[in-house]
Amino acid sequence: MPKKATTEKDMVQEIVLQKTRNIRLTIGFDGTEYNGWQRQKHAATIQGEIEKCLAIMTTSNITLHGAGRTDAGVHAEAMVAHFVTSTSISCQAFTKGLNSMLPEAIRIFAADEMPLDFHARFNAVAKRYQYTICTSRVMPPQQRLYALHFPYSLDFSKMQACLDLVIGKHDFSSFENQGSRDKDKPSRKGAIRTITQATLNSIDEHHQHFIFVGEGFLRHMVRNMVGTILEVGRGQMSVAAFHTALLAKNRSLAGPTAPPHGLTLKKVYYEKES
Amino acid sequence: MPKKATTEKDMVQEIVLQKTRNIRLTIGFDGTEYNGWQRQKHAATIQGEIEKCLAIMTTSNITLHGAGRTDAGVHAEAMVAHFVTSTSISCQAFTKGLNSMLPEAIRIFAADEMPLDFHARFNAVAKRYQYTICTSRVMPPQQRLYALHFPYSLDFSKMQACLDLVIGKHDFSSFENQGSRDKDKPSRKGAIRTITQATLNSIDEHHQHFIFVGEGFLRHMVRNMVGTILEVGRGQMSVAAFHTALLAKNRSLAGPTAPPHGLTLKKVYYEKES
Repeated sequence: MPKKATTEKDMVQEIVLQKTRNIRLTIGFDGTEYNGWQRQKHAATIQGEIEKCLAIMTTSNITLHGAGRTDAGVHAEAMVAHFVTSTSISCQAFTKGLNSMLPEAIRIFAADEMPLDFHARFNAVAKRYQYTICTSRVMPPQQRLYALHFPYSLDFSKMQACLDLVIGKHDFSSFENQGSRDKDKPSRKGAIRTITQATLNSIDEHHQHFIFVGEGFLRHMVRNMVGTILEVGRGQMSVAAFHTALLAKNRSLAGPTAPPHGLTLKKVYYEKES
Repeated sequence: MPKKATTEKDMVQEIVLQKTRNIRLTIGFDGTEYNGWQRQKHAATIQGEIEKCLAIMTTSNITLHGAGRTDAGVHAEAMVAHFVTSTSISCQAFTKGLNSMLPEAIRIFAADEMPLDFHARFNAVAKRYQYTICTSRVMPPQQRLYALHFPYSLDFSKMQACLDLVIGKHDFSSFENQGSRDKDKPSRKGAIRTITQATLNSIDEHHQHFIFVGEGFLRHMVRNMVGTILEVGRGQMSVAAFHTALLAKNRSLAGPTAPPHGLTLKKVYYEKES
């Protein structure tokens, strides 16, 4: 009875289809042309672009939960996000399918099956950011989208002294941009964050990487710290004034916000990893 | 007599203005958005963009003589070009003025006063090109404009064997694209060129640089050699077949032309330098 066989197969297929799965994506993107991570109605965003492709692949609306939001122009080498689906599309097919539809500025490095309780944001225990500066007199064109051109003589020891000051648990109000936290959802920890690593690495004579690792960062916090520390580096502000600014919990005492294109989200840390 | 004094000053100024000068520019560019080096009526080119700015600065038509032409999409870290002018604009003012007007994808690294008999093309004795490949399974977005994505397992020793074969003086007809040389100006040396260095350097697990140094290169010659050597690297062609293709002086025996965006002109050599 071919009819019954077909029906049984359909039923099995139905059960497979209804099984809820949790898929983690590891994503790289060039933020130059995007209005940041978060979905927006009238602007291209990373989340929006990937959700559009997921909707096509799964023929259903999918919400992609990112480990955090990145600002317009900020890049990522390994953003992590997850989504829930009941399709039976394999992880490999998600990677290939998404990469075939997405613009080349957004790439899916991996799709992995995760336990249902995995959450890209809530389970993230730390993030690593890198801010790249180029101090050459003239900016090499190939670097203009990925590094800040800062053609000044810099005092690296003073900059490292500032970085040493931000390590640890502090109220980072001085480096938090207004409108940063949702006023309807006051957070208990306020502007208090813990930074576990803050270093300045010289790549060559004209290139430096700021590296920040922390449990979480306020809006524009890394860019505000970098903008202020660069003021110290070029002698426009003292290390003592930087320390005062940090302790004052007052945004107006700190320096300018460094532009987004020098910033890259390098890694999101979860428990049970190094 | 103030009038006479003014007249004398004017005359001196006139003489200064009429003095012919030869200015060398060292230029970097991201070729992504340009239709190559050579001026074209209806497309943006590197030469065209710089000449437009020079015309504004000097209020006269200036011809910029490049050390060579680069194809659409090819990059340069140090293209050399010269132009003749009778203005008294200083070299520093040329650098600053051009960089203030040019798009950020084109940068003037230096402007230098040269003897009148210096010619960027005729005096060039060699050029160094780099072709970058990325063999990662998925292409990191930040590299997509500056490296060829070639996600295959490659046999580097076979590729180096091919590179060893092209070193020296050869007729490179097999790697010359049609329409390469001006038929109205037949050259005595034809397709014979001398390559002094041809190496493959591993930067990391997934990135390799081809380096070619030679007295001169035919149109698409580097890209045709790279395209063919990559065929050997992934096992689609033998080293012996590569050698046969080189000796045959027959374009149809060699492999495909590698895309332009992996290629960068790294240096133009002149006499009296290392």
